[in-house]
Amino acid sequence: MNNRREFVKKGVVGLMAGSLVSVPESFARPLKEKKEDLFKLAMAGYSFVHFNLDQSLVMMKKTDVHYLCIKDFHLPYASTAEQITAFHEKLKESGVTGYAVGPIYAKSPKEIDNSFDYAKRVGVKLIVGIPSHEDLPYVAQKVKETGIRYAIHIHGPGDKLYPNAVTVYNLIKDLDPGLGICFDMGHDTRYGNDAIADLEKYQKRIFDIHLKNVTAATKEGTTCELGRGVIDIPLFVKTLRKIKYSGMCSLEYEKDMKDPLAGIAESVGYYKGVCQAS
Amino acid sequence: MNNRREFVKKGVVGLMAGSLVSVPESFARPLKEKKEDLFKLAMAGYSFVHFNLDQSLVMMKKTDVHYLCIKDFHLPYASTAEQITAFHEKLKESGVTGYAVGPIYAKSPKEIDNSFDYAKRVGVKLIVGIPSHEDLPYVAQKVKETGIRYAIHIHGPGDKLYPNAVTVYNLIKDLDPGLGICFDMGHDTRYGNDAIADLEKYQKRIFDIHLKNVTAATKEGTTCELGRGVIDIPLFVKTLRKIKYSGMCSLEYEKDMKDPLAGIAESVGYYKGVCQAS
Repeated sequence: MNNRREFVKKGVVGLMAGSLVSVPESFARPLKEKKEDLFKLAMAGYSFVHFNLDQSLVMMKKTDVHYLCIKDFHLPYASTAEQITAFHEKLKESGVTGYAVGPIYAKSPKEIDNSFDYAKRVGVKLIVGIPSHEDLPYVAQKVKETGIRYAIHIHGPGDKLYPNAVTVYNLIKDLDPGLGICFDMGHDTRYGNDAIADLEKYQKRIFDIHLKNVTAATKEGTTCELGRGVIDIPLFVKTLRKIKYSGMCSLEYEKDMKDPLAGIAESVGYYKGVCQAS
Repeated sequence: MNNRREFVKKGVVGLMAGSLVSVPESFARPLKEKKEDLFKLAMAGYSFVHFNLDQSLVMMKKTDVHYLCIKDFHLPYASTAEQITAFHEKLKESGVTGYAVGPIYAKSPKEIDNSFDYAKRVGVKLIVGIPSHEDLPYVAQKVKETGIRYAIHIHGPGDKLYPNAVTVYNLIKDLDPGLGICFDMGHDTRYGNDAIADLEKYQKRIFDIHLKNVTAATKEGTTCELGRGVIDIPLFVKTLRKIKYSGMCSLEYEKDMKDPLAGIAESVGYYKGVCQAS
C-alpha cells in the first residue's frame, strides 16, 4: 500500500508543477486511511523447530515478517555475550527484531532465575514461560524485581498445568500485573473455549499471542493455514482492534513443520489481507 | 469458515438433543453471513511455465485453488481426444477444473480457427487470445458460430496490439458481445491506467481477469505478491462485488517463476483474507 501512496504523492506533485502528465482518477482519489494497528505480526520461533537460524531468517524475509520470539534452539541458554551480539546482528541483517524469548519450561525457582537471567542477557522485556503452579508467586517477585514481564503459555486439552486462558487467569489474577498470558488461540479453542471471547475477557493479562487456526474445536483439532480453520480470524482481528491490543501476533505454524514455507506464506498473506480489508 | 459453521450446527444439535455439553457463547453466536461471491479464484496456467502438469497440480492442491486456465505447455494444441480425456482426469484427481484455454496467439484466420477447434476439443467455453486487429471481425464470427466466448488479453506498455483495456474495448465495442477482455489488472496498471476504474467501466466485456499486483504503475512495474503492490486489492474486490463479476480471478504470478510456491501461497492467502474480511 505504501508504494501506492507514494505514487499518489508523485501524481499530486506532478499536477502541482503544472505537468501535462495525466493522473488516472483513482490515483488522485484519496485512499481510505487505515490507522496503523497497535499490534504487529511476528513469528513464534517454534514454527522453525526443524530449521537453523539462517534457514528461518530466509523464510521470514521471504514472507516479510520482522519480529521473532526467540527459541533456545536458535540461541542456546548458555550463549555468551558475544554469541548473543552476533545473533542480534544476524537478525538485524534480515530486518528482524527478537522481541521475546520462549516458551521456556521452568520447573523450579532456580530454572525461573535462569529464564530471567537469559532474558536479561538477550535484552528482551518479555518471557514466554511455563512455571510450576507453586512457583507463581516467585515468578511475580522476579517480574517486579527485573521489570521483565512473564507470559504463561497455554497448551490446550491434555496439558495439566495451563490448558486454557481461564486456568492461567485464575492463578495469576491476584499476583503482579506483569504476570500474564501467552494466549495460544489454537490451544484455547481446542480446549473447547471461545478464543475470541477469551481474548476480550482476559485482555489486560494477554501479553503475547500465538496466532494460529485449528481444524476443530476439540482435542483432535490440529494447526492449519490461518484462513482454513474454525476460528473466525476477521472477527479475531476486529477484537484485537477493539481491545487495543498492542503486543505481537506471533504466528505459530505447526503443520507440515518440515516443509512449512507455503503454509506460513499463505497464513501471513491471509492475516495481512484480513487486516487491510477490515 | 465452513468447518466452523459445521461446528455451530453440531453445537445446536447437541443442545436440541438436551445434551449437557456446554457450547461456548461465540460458537452459538450466528456468524455474519457472507454471500457466496459470484467470482472464483483460479490459476492462470502461465504461472507454472517452468513446471509440468503434475508439479503444477501439487502447488494448486497445496494452495487450495480449484480452477485452471489451461496453457498449451500443459496440454499441447495437437493433443488427441484420449490425451485430452487423460488431462481432465488428472485435473479431476486434484479437484481442479480447467475453465478456459490460453492465452493463445492467433496471427491469421487459420490460427483463429485452430484456437476455436482446440477449445472445442478441450471442452471449454472461453478462449483467452491475442488475434490481429484486422481479424477481429472474423473472431466475432467464430464466437457467434461456436458459442465459445473470446477474451482478448491485454499486455501493458510496449505491447503494440493490446496494451490496455481501453484499446481492446474500442476495437470490440461494436462487434459481437461474446468478444471481450481478459483483464490483466497488472498490465493495465503498468500502462498507467486505473485498473479499478477500468474494471467498472468495461465490466460488460470483462470475461476473465489476470489477478495480480505490480510494484509500480509504470512500465518498470513488475509482478509482486498480491498484497504488496500499488493496486488496492480490497477496493478491487469490493468493485468485483459491486459489478457482480461472475468470472474467474485467475492468479498470474510472474515473480520467482522458478520457485513460485511461497509467493503464490501468500497471494492466495491474501486474496482469501480480503474476501472473507470485507
